[in-house]
Formats: sequence, C-alpha cells, structure tokens
Amino acid sequence: MHASPSNKPLLLLTMGDVNGIGPEILLKALAAPALWEACRPVVLGCAKAYENARHFAPEAPRTIAVASCEVVVSREAGVAVCDGGWPAPAVRHGVLDPEAGQAAIEWVKLAAGWCLEGRAAGMVTCPINKEAVQKAGYQCSGHTDLIADMCGKSDYRMCLFTETMRVVHITGHLSLYDALKEVKCDRILESIRVGHDALTRMGLAAPRIAVAGLNPHAGEAGAFGREEIDEVAPAIVQGRTEGIECSGPYPPDTVFRRMREGEFDMVIALYHDQGHIPMKLIAMDEGVNVTLGIPIVRTSVDHGTAFDIAGRGIAREDSLIAAVRLAAQLSASKVAL
Amino acid sequence: MHASPSNKPLLLLTMGDVNGIGPEILLKALAAPALWEACRPVVLGCAKAYENARHFAPEAPRTIAVASCEVVVSREAGVAVCDGGWPAPAVRHGVLDPEAGQAAIEWVKLAAGWCLEGRAAGMVTCPINKEAVQKAGYQCSGHTDLIADMCGKSDYRMCLFTETMRVVHITGHLSLYDALKEVKCDRILESIRVGHDALTRMGLAAPRIAVAGLNPHAGEAGAFGREEIDEVAPAIVQGRTEGIECSGPYPPDTVFRRMREGEFDMVIALYHDQGHIPMKLIAMDEGVNVTLGIPIVRTSVDHGTAFDIAGRGIAREDSLIAAVRLAAQLSASKVAL
Repeated sequence: MHASPSNKPLLLLTMGDVNGIGPEILLKALAAPALWEACRPVVLGCAKAYENARHFAPEAPRTIAVASCEVVVSREAGVAVCDGGWPAPAVRHGVLDPEAGQAAIEWVKLAAGWCLEGRAAGMVTCPINKEAVQKAGYQCSGHTDLIADMCGKSDYRMCLFTETMRVVHITGHLSLYDALKEVKCDRILESIRVGHDALTRMGLAAPRIAVAGLNPHAGEAGAFGREEIDEVAPAIVQGRTEGIECSGPYPPDTVFRRMREGEFDMVIALYHDQGHIPMKLIAMDEGVNVTLGIPIVRTSVDHGTAFDIAGRGIAREDSLIAAVRLAAQLSASKVAL
Repeated sequence: MHASPSNKPLLLLTMGDVNGIGPEILLKALAAPALWEACRPVVLGCAKAYENARHFAPEAPRTIAVASCEVVVSREAGVAVCDGGWPAPAVRHGVLDPEAGQAAIEWVKLAAGWCLEGRAAGMVTCPINKEAVQKAGYQCSGHTDLIADMCGKSDYRMCLFTETMRVVHITGHLSLYDALKEVKCDRILESIRVGHDALTRMGLAAPRIAVAGLNPHAGEAGAFGREEIDEVAPAIVQGRTEGIECSGPYPPDTVFRRMREGEFDMVIALYHDQGHIPMKLIAMDEGVNVTLGIPIVRTSVDHGTAFDIAGRGIAREDSLIAAVRLAAQLSASKVAL
C-alpha cells in the first residue's frame, strides 16, 4: 500500500504530556518507514521535548518548525513540528505538571480545529494526563470528550480496533448501572450504522457486524433479561433493512472469540467493559482507540502516559503506528458520519 | 504427581446426555493414562452407550458393571460403570430425547448423593441437555442448580478454572440488571473466602486473590459508580483481616491480563460475563467449570452437549481430563466449605 506523496493523507500527531511516554513513542514511530508510507505527518507538540527524546530513536527525522500544517514534508527533509504558541515546560519524566497538561490539551484543540476546518485529513493523539490537565484549570474529563465537544457531538462512540478485531461500544465512561439504562434500540442502531460506515471507509466489502447480547447467554430467550428481545433484536432488524450485514444478539462470552476466529469483522458491545475486557486481554500493544460518530477522523494509542516507565526507553511505538495507519485508512475515502 | 492407588481419590464421572458428545469424551479421557494417574474413576452412565462410542477410542478400558461405587478398579481390569437402574435409550446422536435427559439427570443425582454420603471424594459431570431434562418432566434449570439443591445450598459460586487462571463469579445466571443488585460486601467476602479455601486445598501457599471492580476503570474513585468504594473495598479489608492475601478493586479490563501474566492466582468477578468473556476467549478447550460453596467437590467440562458434532469423533477430551485433575486436587485435602 505505497501511496504516492500527493495522495497520502495529512495527519496531525499530538505529542501528549511531555512528561509521559508521548515524545518517546512519537520519535520511535517517526523513525519507522511504515509511518511515512501511511501518511504525511505533522507533529503538534514541542520541538525541545522532541529533541530531548532523541536518544531513544537517533534515526528519527530532524524537526522543521512550522506555524501551520500546510507544509511539504518528507522523512529525509524532516518532520514539521508546530507548538501553536504553547511550548512545553522542561521535561521531567513522570512528574505531574499542570503546564505540561496545558500544552498537551492546547495541541489537541489545535489539531481538532484544523481537522474541522478541513486542513488535515485526521488526527492521532498520544496520551495526556487527565489530572495535569485538570490542575491546569481545564474542565475536561479526557481529550475524547474535548474533541467531541469541539465537534458539537456529545454522543460519540468509543471503539477499540486491532488488525482483525474491532469493537464499537454503545456507551463509554458511565457506571455500569447507568450504562444499562442506555441499552436502547436507537443507540444500538446508530452504533451499527457508525461501525458499518467505518468498516466501509476502511475498504471492507460487506462487513459482518455482530451485536453482543447484554445478559449471560444473551438472556436465553428472556429467561434472564429481556433487553435482547426488546432492544437489541429490533436494532438488528432495522440495520438489515438498511442493507447492513449485522446479526445477533450473540452470547457475550463467545462472540469475541468468534470474531477473533474470523467469523465477524466487528462486534457492537453494549457497555465499556464488555468490549474492553476481551480487547485488552488479547491486544495490549497493537490496540487502537478510535472515536466514531464525530465528523473528523480521530484515533489514539490504547494506553496512558505511563509515567512509571517514562524516560526509560522501553515504551513501545506499536500502538501509535497502528493508530496512524488506521487514521490513514479511515480518511482515505472520508465521508462525514 | 503419581499417587499410589490407595490414596487416589475416588471420583464419580457422570456420562451426561448419551446423544451428545458425553460418551465420546468419556472414552477418550478414560483411554488416557493421565486420568488414571489422577484418580480412581467410576462412571455413572450406560455401558451400552459406552460401547457404542468404542470406535472413537478403541484403547479405552472395558466396562465392569457395578451397583455401587465401592469397587476396586484399574485401567487394565476395566472401568466400573453403574447405571443406578437408569439405562439410557438407544443412542441417536444429536437427537433431543427426554429419556436420555432423564437418565442423565438421575446419574447426576446418584453421584451427588454418594458424594454427600462420603462414599466418593467428588464428582465430574459431562454435559446434559437442559431441554431434554425439562421435557422429561424435571423442574431443573441445569445440573448445577440440582446438585446445589441436593446439598441444601442455593447460594453456590460458579467458577472457571484453567491451569493458571481461576475466576470465581459472585453470581451466576441472572440478568445483568439483577446481578448488579447482588454486588454486596457480604457476597463478595464470601466469594473471597470460598476462593481462598479452594486454592489452599489445591496446595497453593498464600494464594493471591484479585477482586475486580464493577465499573469502567473500577469507577475512578467514585467518578462513575460507587460500588467499589461502598461494597468491594470493605470486603477486601475484611478478607485481609482474616489473613487472606486479597487486593483490589482493580480495573476490570486489565485484571484478567494481570492474572494471565502471573500477578494473581484468582480473580473474583462481579458478574457472569465479567469472568466468562476473558476465560472463554483464552481457554476454550482447557477450561473447567467448578462449583464452589457446596459441601462436595464438583467439577464439570466447560462446554455443552454439542449435538451438532455428536457422533463425528471430533470432540476433544481436554476439558474433561482437566476437570478430573482439578476435582482430584480439590479433594486431596478436602474440607467442608
């Protein structure tokens, strides 16, 4: 899949909290030819923090300071880096620093804004530290909420994708009790549509979407729980009416294995942990976090700032490279959701 | 772990529904030296159905018809088989037959009764067909309920064990909504105790028990859900007071991976699928179903009758052998729970 420079999507890579592993995985990923084969990258972050991580990936490209993303870049010439007027404080690995939190969140805002203006094909985010952001005075519970807010969509979908397994969650960070109340036909149907759209953009012909049940054994025909009958099944019927190859509800404790074995391309999970438990068990390093249901392409690494290992050189760039590749796929034939 | 014949535990193996894969996996398991190294087996089932499956495992021992379990057996002499006056109907693979259901359930009752009388060290069950049992006129939702009823305990614990991963579920076949209501300190504490007892009987010194949270990220200190604070944490404190090495509550989406990587010996799961999703994903063939919280040792294969593949010779005996081994371990230093 070697695209010519002209048709490679321009992707904005946000550096995340400079005191975490963000700069390290960014350099390691930018040193990899795979990243440049997938996209034209622009880093939103701090050139000093970038150079501070140089020893983790000596072969990473040098930086070219830019003020906007309309720049021609190549691995040989260097990677464009823009701080948007928010240089990071001096790097102190593993330290919670509100200034680092502030810079990290401003880079995310800049990236989302440029994507919304159509100046970039998508954005890929490195981890921020929620506490540092909050201590800097921001009322945000995470950058996904922030990005969704900027897009004017509070009802986004948290997704986890690997090369062969993909999960769309109908809800995110709610208590399990509150999440149960959201197991409704409309929400499930919208998740099926959003998932189908993503798979189609990724080039899958007639993608097969499985919808998980909510209760043990998918309720055994109403013996324990009626959500499968009252909410899930009608959503599947409607999805099929719309031409989507969706099916279920399936027993939750085997549907992920069936996807892993190739029977399905995607599972719609009815609450956060239903999908997160199997995906994190199998794909800790290659998982990508995707936000669907918003009008821009946004992927993220599937891990946190990892303050405990920051600065040790042992962080892996796999998830970031996978996130870049996926963002490129999703933006290749981008349509508004 | 070669026990001498005299100190090997006597285990009752129930044949299950003869129209499923029960007889096939039973013969295959009895043909394996591993089974005889772990226990002295007595089959509760039908000698004719046994012979009908002979071609799946020609080297399986011949049968010796017995009327009680106090018999000396050896692989060379043959395996004791007792039908308790309930011979099975002619085998018809994959056919739902109430008579087969009736025989299967009566063998289970016989086994549980003998265990309760102390005449056997434990029982290992092959799968029954719930529908066949109900069509035979029994008011039972599964043999686990039946066994627990016979033991006078309605409040048992469903568990899934593999060689290195073990999960105790605080509830079983309830709707997720009803299961949430059972996330209470007392129930969690009792599960910790029952799990610790089982691990101790299996010979683990100072077993490490992790308790999962209920909500995403274990609630993030009450940000979404308070069960971790109000119910789970107090149970852990009390467990530790009793000298049990338990800890948590841990984020549900990483605790199973941590167990898999060796950090814990067991996870207490707060609802059916929280534990079933990861265990079935990783251990489809070697998983063992264990019933804890009852005064007898009972394990079971972790699959159903598999009517769809019955009679084809492709069923695997791994789970049954693992179930036998685990029952032997649990009964080796058996104490009442």
